[in-house]
Amino acid sequence: MIIVRTKEELRHAIREMADDGQSIGLVPTMGYLHEGHASLLTAAREQCEVTVLSIFVNPLQFGANEDLDTYPRDETRDIALAGSCHTDIVFIPSVQEMYSSRPLTSVKVSEITEQLCGASRPGHFDGVGIVIAKLFHLVKPHRAYFGMKDAQQVAVIEQLVHDLDFDVEIVRMPTVREPDGLALSSRNVRLSPEQRHQALVLSKVLKDAARWLKGPEMTVDSLLKAVRTEIGKMKEAEIDYVELMQYPSLQRVPGKQCLQEASGTVILALAVKFGATRLIDNALYTIGER
Amino acid sequence: MIIVRTKEELRHAIREMADDGQSIGLVPTMGYLHEGHASLLTAAREQCEVTVLSIFVNPLQFGANEDLDTYPRDETRDIALAGSCHTDIVFIPSVQEMYSSRPLTSVKVSEITEQLCGASRPGHFDGVGIVIAKLFHLVKPHRAYFGMKDAQQVAVIEQLVHDLDFDVEIVRMPTVREPDGLALSSRNVRLSPEQRHQALVLSKVLKDAARWLKGPEMTVDSLLKAVRTEIGKMKEAEIDYVELMQYPSLQRVPGKQCLQEASGTVILALAVKFGATRLIDNALYTIGER
Repeated sequence: MIIVRTKEELRHAIREMADDGQSIGLVPTMGYLHEGHASLLTAAREQCEVTVLSIFVNPLQFGANEDLDTYPRDETRDIALAGSCHTDIVFIPSVQEMYSSRPLTSVKVSEITEQLCGASRPGHFDGVGIVIAKLFHLVKPHRAYFGMKDAQQVAVIEQLVHDLDFDVEIVRMPTVREPDGLALSSRNVRLSPEQRHQALVLSKVLKDAARWLKGPEMTVDSLLKAVRTEIGKMKEAEIDYVELMQYPSLQRVPGKQCLQEASGTVILALAVKFGATRLIDNALYTIGER
Repeated sequence: MIIVRTKEELRHAIREMADDGQSIGLVPTMGYLHEGHASLLTAAREQCEVTVLSIFVNPLQFGANEDLDTYPRDETRDIALAGSCHTDIVFIPSVQEMYSSRPLTSVKVSEITEQLCGASRPGHFDGVGIVIAKLFHLVKPHRAYFGMKDAQQVAVIEQLVHDLDFDVEIVRMPTVREPDGLALSSRNVRLSPEQRHQALVLSKVLKDAARWLKGPEMTVDSLLKAVRTEIGKMKEAEIDYVELMQYPSLQRVPGKQCLQEASGTVILALAVKFGATRLIDNALYTIGER
């Protein structure tokens, strides 16, 4: 496994390892890796000849009041995990290396960035857009792996790839969960034991919703109300958003819509703060197939 | 020479011709080719193993009141010229092929797009940004060739490449001129004989300015005034802009700045309408090297 910190070293390492048309798999991360990231690396390892992991806490995707400075980091452990997943190249650039001058270029996806985390975190997806464009240009992956825990991010990147004709396949990987259902997140370490216990409501309600939305009279509004009520039972929970939308277009579904009369794929997306820690979780459902 | 009209055919042709690491040169154009484009193709031919010409009148870089519908086109002649320059692949997509759905993604370069043609043609460089990103992703060129007649476009694309880490070398090619000095342009065919004669003032004044700006007392304001006066002598000339700026940053130079006390590379950029036909021309000067 090669560890590189500059773009030049990265390009050189990729040329050395993949010069005869071998397929490259990229797993872009912000580090503090967990089993969710490991599942992406393992899939890349299985499907591609060369696997590249990037670790970069991208300041452009954090808002002014967000947790950039306190975002958890542990490079040594990340490198060990990358090694255990048989990663070929780990790219760990500094902020200065990635943004040697203030970029004048923006890469913006409209519409699908205007709800959910895009609404709660203005500018967040513009930061994602530019860093993903840069990483794709630096690594030139054939496949790039993203976890569906960040389902909106996946939708945004798929749109970016479509609109700009990037020659890369976006591989959607399922959310990895603890045995009790909690979605893995680098931010979970910040939860108190009590908060962690209360946070189980997220995965539980996503499971319940799969049953609820089959109810013959169930509308979007009544489903969302039921979900909010369940989450509201947790004392430390403060809802940022609870939304049901079409996926991946993230178009709204009318509140009065009876779910069994609709069709297609919808996402139930949750963002809830437990104390100072904001967690997101979601599930996709295929509706209207009777 | 292979002529392809779809992205899939293009990708296939490039894979076939350049699969063992051969260098690819791209010349992106809007067609109606002239000797200026031929000089780009010839340079690409000399410096790269595979040359790709794209011909696409990109609607996104035309404003609502601009000449998209009447932009001159002659595919047969373009293909003949491409052949005579020993081009390998000509890519002529339809609008539907390039934009199969309305793009939600924008690629915007700020600051250097806010003056000159960016100010006269709002949105123009956003259209350039997205189409260049798409062409770079489709062709994956090692080098891309652009004429300095569109000097602002070159500056914008260089910034785009820098900010997004595109792995492509932008090759600046000098403006090609008629023997009497008129810069070649696909729009020149629309000039009446009298307009064409008057348009010679552009190249003449760019030449004169090289002498004028060596004057010991010459300020930016007085230089621009002299240039405007010369152009104003032409009855059919209507000035859109006459500007002196740093290049490639396109930062303003203060009007009272004495040119012989400044240093660096500056551009004198002209956009002038002759009747309904808007022409641009420019020259770069190195100042302050005494």
